Amino acid sequence: MSTPFQFTLEAQDGRARAGRFTTPHGELLTPVFAPVGTAATVKAVTPGQLADLGASLVLSNTYHLYLRPGADLVAEMGGLHEFMQWQGPILTDSGGFQVFSLGEKSKITDEGVTFRSHIDGSTHHFTPESAVQIQEQLGADIIMAFDECADPYDAAYSQRAMQRTHDWLVRCLQAKRRGDQALFGIVQGGVHPDLRARSAEFVAAQNTPGIAIGGLSVGETKDEMHDMLEVVDPLLPEDRPRYLMGVGTPEDLINGVARGVDIFDCVLPTRMGRNHSALLQRGGRLNLKNATFARDEAPIDAACDCYTCRTFTRAYLRHLISAKEMLSATLLSIHNLYALVDLAKAMRAAILVGRFEEEYAHLLVR
Amino acid sequence: MSTPFQFTLEAQDGRARAGRFTTPHGELLTPVFAPVGTAATVKAVTPGQLADLGASLVLSNTYHLYLRPGADLVAEMGGLHEFMQWQGPILTDSGGFQVFSLGEKSKITDEGVTFRSHIDGSTHHFTPESAVQIQEQLGADIIMAFDECADPYDAAYSQRAMQRTHDWLVRCLQAKRRGDQALFGIVQGGVHPDLRARSAEFVAAQNTPGIAIGGLSVGETKDEMHDMLEVVDPLLPEDRPRYLMGVGTPEDLINGVARGVDIFDCVLPTRMGRNHSALLQRGGRLNLKNATFARDEAPIDAACDCYTCRTFTRAYLRHLISAKEMLSATLLSIHNLYALVDLAKAMRAAILVGRFEEEYAHLLVR
Repeated sequence: MSTPFQFTLEAQDGRARAGRFTTPHGELLTPVFAPVGTAATVKAVTPGQLADLGASLVLSNTYHLYLRPGADLVAEMGGLHEFMQWQGPILTDSGGFQVFSLGEKSKITDEGVTFRSHIDGSTHHFTPESAVQIQEQLGADIIMAFDECADPYDAAYSQRAMQRTHDWLVRCLQAKRRGDQALFGIVQGGVHPDLRARSAEFVAAQNTPGIAIGGLSVGETKDEMHDMLEVVDPLLPEDRPRYLMGVGTPEDLINGVARGVDIFDCVLPTRMGRNHSALLQRGGRLNLKNATFARDEAPIDAACDCYTCRTFTRAYLRHLISAKEMLSATLLSIHNLYALVDLAKAMRAAILVGRFEEEYAHLLVR
Repeated sequence: MSTPFQFTLEAQDGRARAGRFTTPHGELLTPVFAPVGTAATVKAVTPGQLADLGASLVLSNTYHLYLRPGADLVAEMGGLHEFMQWQGPILTDSGGFQVFSLGEKSKITDEGVTFRSHIDGSTHHFTPESAVQIQEQLGADIIMAFDECADPYDAAYSQRAMQRTHDWLVRCLQAKRRGDQALFGIVQGGVHPDLRARSAEFVAAQNTPGIAIGGLSVGETKDEMHDMLEVVDPLLPEDRPRYLMGVGTPEDLINGVARGVDIFDCVLPTRMGRNHSALLQRGGRLNLKNATFARDEAPIDAACDCYTCRTFTRAYLRHLISAKEMLSATLLSIHNLYALVDLAKAMRAAILVGRFEEEYAHLLVR
């Protein structure tokens, strides 16, 4: 392949992998956690703060940007990197997940999906071809095939959605024009091992530079998520990065890495940051609105080296929350993002020296 | 005086002054603009961002901190510098202005003021003595005498409030215990030249290490504010800094400096930042919510060197505002604060080379 996207598997420790993925905006060292910047901004955090906390890959949402400010406007402004001033790699989803999340308001055929804007109720239509075209206008380094995400427990619907996702992947690959973007195919199949296996084999055969695992963390149990990862892991090519979409918590990252996943993203750290909650990298969380923190001079996490923990006490953060000060969202988001970004780096370091299972045994689920 | 507070007048250019004021947390180069951190946070901006934009002095509000989180808690946490992690000088007001702004809900006698909390309606009482004691618990470098701010057009009330302010200044000075805080007296007198002159003479005679000018920018015209500054300027000692409370805009800063003022503070830049509005250092403002900026690739102000202007387009800021993203408040607040902090520095540089009137002629009102 004459692609600028090369994945080098540097080490394996059990099923856990450490790798490097080259993109036009720099190399990703995996495992990696990507902060989510839905509307071309990681909520309440500047790109400077994102870089300072060690983020490398940022995710943005095609559905939201298509509606506002519009993909044509982003393209006119020089693309997403230039628009939001993130110099590192960017990944966009295809809009599929958001469109289907609208439920009653969307209409799906083999050709594509008609849906209504959550902003003004206006009607729009996405096809595999238009989802690729919009993502080419946005200009991320890594883009996603248009997929259908079914109710994971509905076997018949999961099979139909998987088949459609496969057909749409072929159409996406045919529609793709730009050579400087990596289009990832997406494995679907709900919580059904046979469907997941068929989907992994189909997507693997399309030879995309990376493979996403979709339709998890959408209501199924952790055990079911782990089972599905174990089904697809041996069927996916070793020499391509695997991206588990929309996941998750420290526990999810550790258990995903243990099952061969390389890339993660989730709104959790920033959403929790706006809801007064702090993630602990070793598991658990603190609700800093709690009055027990009013005079607590400790940082959120004494073991954390983020700006927030290096600088502020729990008492101060609790005061900001009580006073409804916006700064609390910024400081907690910085901490929560750092917790996951740094966890991915720490796991990478452990894999490189063959100590992954040992160091993360306390959160590994078998 | 055995005070750590020394003011050195370095240059005068007309009535405009350049000076240095030493405090326990560093030297202030004047003229200086102080961002306001009402509740121990400059809204939407981290202390790191504040330092990066060049702020030196930060103001915080005694009334707000007394109510939440409480002065005892701040003291227990090591004082305001430690609590909010601002390493530079801090100034607190006395709470007088906020208490009187409550209007109907406050009851004033010579002894002090009874008022109700805007948070929970609970009843509280401030006296000159308690206002000093609370500010000693908070621990700012510069603290304010407890004063009464009258309707500026009511001559009889202005006179009574001025007299009370003078009596209270004497009581504040007697109540003061800490040696590492500079207590400033406050000149009152509404828009009445005779009262302002008497007040300036009285406060000057108390020999406080700095003098505040209160009760302006509370509804009077710009011309009246300028007139009052011109009345007090020759009556105040040259060797003490003068602080014009709660002012203002670029035009106000320039016209204040031209009339001998050294220190300014105002919520305007951060409030405007949360309301989609950008200050221009040379005068005027932009409402970035306006659709005309949707595809504008220029920064807010091509002449501005703040993080926001060095990094982002008007189009991006306008998008953040449309999408109701918190980052817009942060980025606009950084710009607006920089505009005023940097304006004060630029005026200082002009004064030092004798070019103040020349460089600011376009905004000077005579």
